Amino acid sequence: MKHILSILVLLFVIGCTPVKENQEPTFGIVIHGGAGTILKENMSPEMEQAYREKLTEAVATGHAILKAGGTSQDAVEQTIHVMENSPLFNSGKGAVLTADESIALDASFMNGKTLDAGAIAGVKHIKNPISAAIMVMNNSPHVMLAGAGADQFAVEQGLDTVSESYFITEMRLDALKRVQEKEASQKLSLNALEEQYFKNQRIGTVGCVALDLQGNLAAGTSTGGMTNKKWDRIGDAPIIGAGTYANNASCGVSATGWGEFFIRSVVAHDIAALVEYKNLSIQEASKIVLQKVKDLGGDGGVVVLDTQGNVAMEFNTPGMYRAHMNALGELNVKIYENK
Amino acid sequence: MKHILSILVLLFVIGCTPVKENQEPTFGIVIHGGAGTILKENMSPEMEQAYREKLTEAVATGHAILKAGGTSQDAVEQTIHVMENSPLFNSGKGAVLTADESIALDASFMNGKTLDAGAIAGVKHIKNPISAAIMVMNNSPHVMLAGAGADQFAVEQGLDTVSESYFITEMRLDALKRVQEKEASQKLSLNALEEQYFKNQRIGTVGCVALDLQGNLAAGTSTGGMTNKKWDRIGDAPIIGAGTYANNASCGVSATGWGEFFIRSVVAHDIAALVEYKNLSIQEASKIVLQKVKDLGGDGGVVVLDTQGNVAMEFNTPGMYRAHMNALGELNVKIYENK
Repeated sequence: MKHILSILVLLFVIGCTPVKENQEPTFGIVIHGGAGTILKENMSPEMEQAYREKLTEAVATGHAILKAGGTSQDAVEQTIHVMENSPLFNSGKGAVLTADESIALDASFMNGKTLDAGAIAGVKHIKNPISAAIMVMNNSPHVMLAGAGADQFAVEQGLDTVSESYFITEMRLDALKRVQEKEASQKLSLNALEEQYFKNQRIGTVGCVALDLQGNLAAGTSTGGMTNKKWDRIGDAPIIGAGTYANNASCGVSATGWGEFFIRSVVAHDIAALVEYKNLSIQEASKIVLQKVKDLGGDGGVVVLDTQGNVAMEFNTPGMYRAHMNALGELNVKIYENK
Repeated sequence: MKHILSILVLLFVIGCTPVKENQEPTFGIVIHGGAGTILKENMSPEMEQAYREKLTEAVATGHAILKAGGTSQDAVEQTIHVMENSPLFNSGKGAVLTADESIALDASFMNGKTLDAGAIAGVKHIKNPISAAIMVMNNSPHVMLAGAGADQFAVEQGLDTVSESYFITEMRLDALKRVQEKEASQKLSLNALEEQYFKNQRIGTVGCVALDLQGNLAAGTSTGGMTNKKWDRIGDAPIIGAGTYANNASCGVSATGWGEFFIRSVVAHDIAALVEYKNLSIQEASKIVLQKVKDLGGDGGVVVLDTQGNVAMEFNTPGMYRAHMNALGELNVKIYENK
């Protein structure tokens, strides 16, 4: 009995020992594919399986790059490509549609070592918006480009461009029609299921944060924005500090949710500020900032990594598509609250 | 002698007494009209006089609103109108020109009590962009609109629109030509005077922070961006957290400077975070964040107010057009480092 107690005490002490500053190099990667009213009862087993497989493929893509000594930038870019190229997520192929059945894609990227950043908003022809954001960072004097100008920049840079029809899927056309019919009917009250449905049309984004073996964080976010959006609306995804932030001094963050509230709460930078200025853990900081978003009336989630390889996947919606792989290759893929 | 010493000690104690939480209602307003290489030797007495008069008119406009019990929102909006309507500043009339001799105006506004915010980027026909930003906040479900969509929204809202020619001045056409000639000549090295000149073409913005008698902060920023900008570049001015931020829990901030560095440093929110999380004064916080901008290679300035009516007007360029009026009506207008 005394022996067992000693072991328990030892395990407790080990569990409580803070990670040392001069630890062995580690690495890790975390992704999200959007947060929202994602409920098991509304999901077919085949659809759930498809999401789990694509999340696994995406996170494993970046993990392999990091394990081979690649940069967090490459890991973030290639991981997000997998999700942008899949119609399952609201980014790249399968992005939601604007009010005029068009496409307007946003993305941003930040390097946690140099604080270099790039972003594009409202592009219509760039196959992989995250790569355009990285090219803005690397090959222009600017951080953020928008609309036709951003598309033109991508063409000049030789990035893969496609016609708008490449991005458009039946599922998103149908969603746009339903949202517009609801708007036209001017029905003021919705039942709970409708409410859920329309709430989900506001959100959905993909994002990735990676830590490489050199100890450098990077974060990226890519989205089609909000169904039925008008007036060239820009959400939080392309805004450095709101949807994306990375700083080796604190953490890397990619957010997903009701963009307007995430802009007003400067979510990604506020999490980093609480970590750097108040010495909070990334979990504590994420919970506090998401509570601020909720207090304003919004919802969504974040994925966060710090330079010790700690991970946070926090959200205040019923579900968030998410996955994490640590340096040991341990995989954690979840959709609902607990699994 | 003992008597004098007692008085000195008393004055010292009064000077050191922290402002009480339950102080008398106060109010105040601070503005900037851009930071840059503004040197007395390059300025004619007439031009200097014109700037001082317009800064005074602008700050007095908002001060009168606040003194009469008006809101910080109204004070910020009407104060910025004065500067937008003047060709002296790079906002509204007199904005700098894009690479194709066009206009692309950005503005943002934030309410420190509700954390409501609105922004527009790249508009070409809205006479007073700050009012469009406020209308996005009040009359749309969005925070940020861009390009033609933002112009269309303003038209739908009945805001004053003008043709592009309204904004364009000889001075800015001339500046664009000089910048483009320099670019075409591909001269790699510039002499000190040229360097100053081209540096100044990157920057210049107007902004205002106000505190009303109800204790509410508001901040707004309006700009034409950067001379010769391409690809629908967006700077920090329309980005909540970068160019503009207001929160009664910390302070209100409007920034001006080399926008790319201000986005990467999330300047306005970082100042607010240092005030809220580290209990720094707005001066200390502003100095720290501007030093971060400088360390990255950028420059510029900020104006900041807190709910006690304290003011900061900090910059790391040779000059910044700026003015402040406190609740007593004391006016402080400066252009160069110390006057």
